Amino acid sequence: MSELQFSARPNKKELDETKAFAPKFDDKGLIAAMAIDHETREPLMLAYMNEESLKMTIEKGEAVYYSRSRQEIWHKGATSGHTQIIHEIRTDCDQDALILYVTQQGAGACHTGRRSCFYRAVSFPQNNPVDLDFVDDEKTFDPDTVYGQK
Amino acid sequence: MSELQFSARPNKKELDETKAFAPKFDDKGLIAAMAIDHETREPLMLAYMNEESLKMTIEKGEAVYYSRSRQEIWHKGATSGHTQIIHEIRTDCDQDALILYVTQQGAGACHTGRRSCFYRAVSFPQNNPVDLDFVDDEKTFDPDTVYGQK
Repeated sequence: MSELQFSARPNKKELDETKAFAPKFDDKGLIAAMAIDHETREPLMLAYMNEESLKMTIEKGEAVYYSRSRQEIWHKGATSGHTQIIHEIRTDCDQDALILYVTQQGAGACHTGRRSCFYRAVSFPQNNPVDLDFVDDEKTFDPDTVYGQK
Repeated sequence: MSELQFSARPNKKELDETKAFAPKFDDKGLIAAMAIDHETREPLMLAYMNEESLKMTIEKGEAVYYSRSRQEIWHKGATSGHTQIIHEIRTDCDQDALILYVTQQGAGACHTGRRSCFYRAVSFPQNNPVDLDFVDDEKTFDPDTVYGQK
């Protein structure tokens, strides 16, 4: 277990201006974290952390999430080699969201073989039902090779 | 009520490659949305939407969130004039997160008077308890003037 400690949540006004890190985990014990490329500022993925994985992220200097589907700690890149080296961890005014500025190791963050998970956008003018355009569709690696055939 | 329709969720493999917009709302009916400045690519804030507010966002072309604390639809900027004009709405591979590329009207997105809510970063090397540095601390407007004294 990590010996790192976070601070107790102060009142709302103080929370905005304090230097104490007092992240808010929701009723499932999770906080949202958006990983963004440190150099290009390209958003890569959004995932969740629990208290333990956030402490591991700080200590390792690599992104460690909590997988909601598998219900376990998820050291991103442990399988694929596509780890995310942490440059900066930001939090917001009420400390219930995180941004990770990272260097993405390997060819991409997305399990589909793309650099970023955010490769589709809502079509405008929108149709009904609403549909999506592929706006950033380059595959930078072969997921079957990296993750194994599924 | 909006007449816009989203699609039913297909299976996981199809979800990655479909053009159908089939956003996943969690067990509280919410999806995370990160607002990012369309021109500078600066992350501004992270908030949540329910199905109704996402449809309103698409129809209005302005960001409409769902306030978890007030438990109501929250048309960002309705009070302050600091609306967010939508340029693009992206979703991720499993369609359970959104990015809004926006033009932030007025001086900023954050209720503290800053342009972005993400003005603090975890100090490295970290102390114990973990603390934060103010890394982007310019106040661009006076929140008491814009939102009224609290």
